Amino acid sequence: MKIAVLGTGGGARAHTAKLLELGHDVSVGTRDVDATLARTEPDMMGNPPYRQFLADHPGIQLRTFANAAATADLVINGIDGANALAALTAIANQLAGKTLIDYAVPYLYNPQVEHPWPTPFGVMPKLEPCDTDSLAEQIQRALPEVRVVKSLVTQEQDTVVNPKAVGGGDHTMFVAGDDEQAKKTTTELLRSYGWSDILDLGGLVAARGMEMYAHMHAAIGIALGLGNHFGVKIIRH
Amino acid sequence: MKIAVLGTGGGARAHTAKLLELGHDVSVGTRDVDATLARTEPDMMGNPPYRQFLADHPGIQLRTFANAAATADLVINGIDGANALAALTAIANQLAGKTLIDYAVPYLYNPQVEHPWPTPFGVMPKLEPCDTDSLAEQIQRALPEVRVVKSLVTQEQDTVVNPKAVGGGDHTMFVAGDDEQAKKTTTELLRSYGWSDILDLGGLVAARGMEMYAHMHAAIGIALGLGNHFGVKIIRH
Repeated sequence: MKIAVLGTGGGARAHTAKLLELGHDVSVGTRDVDATLARTEPDMMGNPPYRQFLADHPGIQLRTFANAAATADLVINGIDGANALAALTAIANQLAGKTLIDYAVPYLYNPQVEHPWPTPFGVMPKLEPCDTDSLAEQIQRALPEVRVVKSLVTQEQDTVVNPKAVGGGDHTMFVAGDDEQAKKTTTELLRSYGWSDILDLGGLVAARGMEMYAHMHAAIGIALGLGNHFGVKIIRH
Repeated sequence: MKIAVLGTGGGARAHTAKLLELGHDVSVGTRDVDATLARTEPDMMGNPPYRQFLADHPGIQLRTFANAAATADLVINGIDGANALAALTAIANQLAGKTLIDYAVPYLYNPQVEHPWPTPFGVMPKLEPCDTDSLAEQIQRALPEVRVVKSLVTQEQDTVVNPKAVGGGDHTMFVAGDDEQAKKTTTELLRSYGWSDILDLGGLVAARGMEMYAHMHAAIGIALGLGNHFGVKIIRH
């Protein structure tokens, strides 16, 4: 399948590598191709320069957001939550009619607001939107011709593409969205990643809980300690 | 142990019955004892009148919030999230020095605000506070002499006191709080309920994620369908 991954951060790289491994035709979208290729230092999360990732993963087509989306049948949004809505709205034409899988957490990075960034250890950044709205719903409202699915966001970015690394894969991945066909496409992709327990939470309104779970996910990660991978399993009766 | 359960709703009743069964000396606190005893209709959640619950569970001492808290060594807050802070602050003297286990979700019930109550099916009420604060932290700030622990909130109110009903009990209960002794007391109570996997999420700041998880908990419950019990298990490596 022709798949575009928008973004060059850690999560986007995990998807990109996995999709290449699965034999897909993968385009990666970035804001400024030349700037991405020019970087020689690790990014703010400590990921090595992207050109090193490209060298290690032959076959990736690095393009602008617009060009990557234009050539794809399926788009995965790996643009950070604070910038995703504006960046996706700018390429509305290239996304129209396609399935967009969004896993962004809308952390507010704005240092002008009362909640500082970086936050003290153990305190997560403010979410914006939160509670009565979600980033996924904002994206869907801004792009009514796109089939938005929220998924992937409630698990670690490494285990998302390698679920069997935790508990032999017996943990739960969620999907939510208003388009059944798009959720089916997403579910098939998740199965190809190795997910077997995929729970459909219904309409895109359920993205609120999935995004807000970020705070508990972070607290669990801190409690278990760095490097101790975990997954969330919904135990049924 | 002398334990007070504040509240007469479904969750409070589950704890009250379980604590009686475990042989504790149980006081139940209510705002107005006469009014609670006078009710002959089911409450807004469909629970039968409290006097029927009392008749079915001999040994409960029904008291005012203040008198119930005054006689107890350990207090469980089952007052609804919209009213808990005011009700607990009013009995600060009776709670001082004690462990208070809080499981309230701070749903905003105020019909005057833009977010209506009841909400459309699948849309949960607004949380107030949310994201950059939690009800548990508000209670702790208002009652600095009380040892506040957040727990119980991330599981169904039936399975909280009967974890083995789901997955043989192999799912995860969280605790968070700033007082280690209070978390130890809470953990011992949870073990007596049947919980074996109890994960300490650290300081009370983690209550934010636990309360905000309410939206995902609701979405999972709706997805699985009424009457299909479930639990959340954190799968470690």
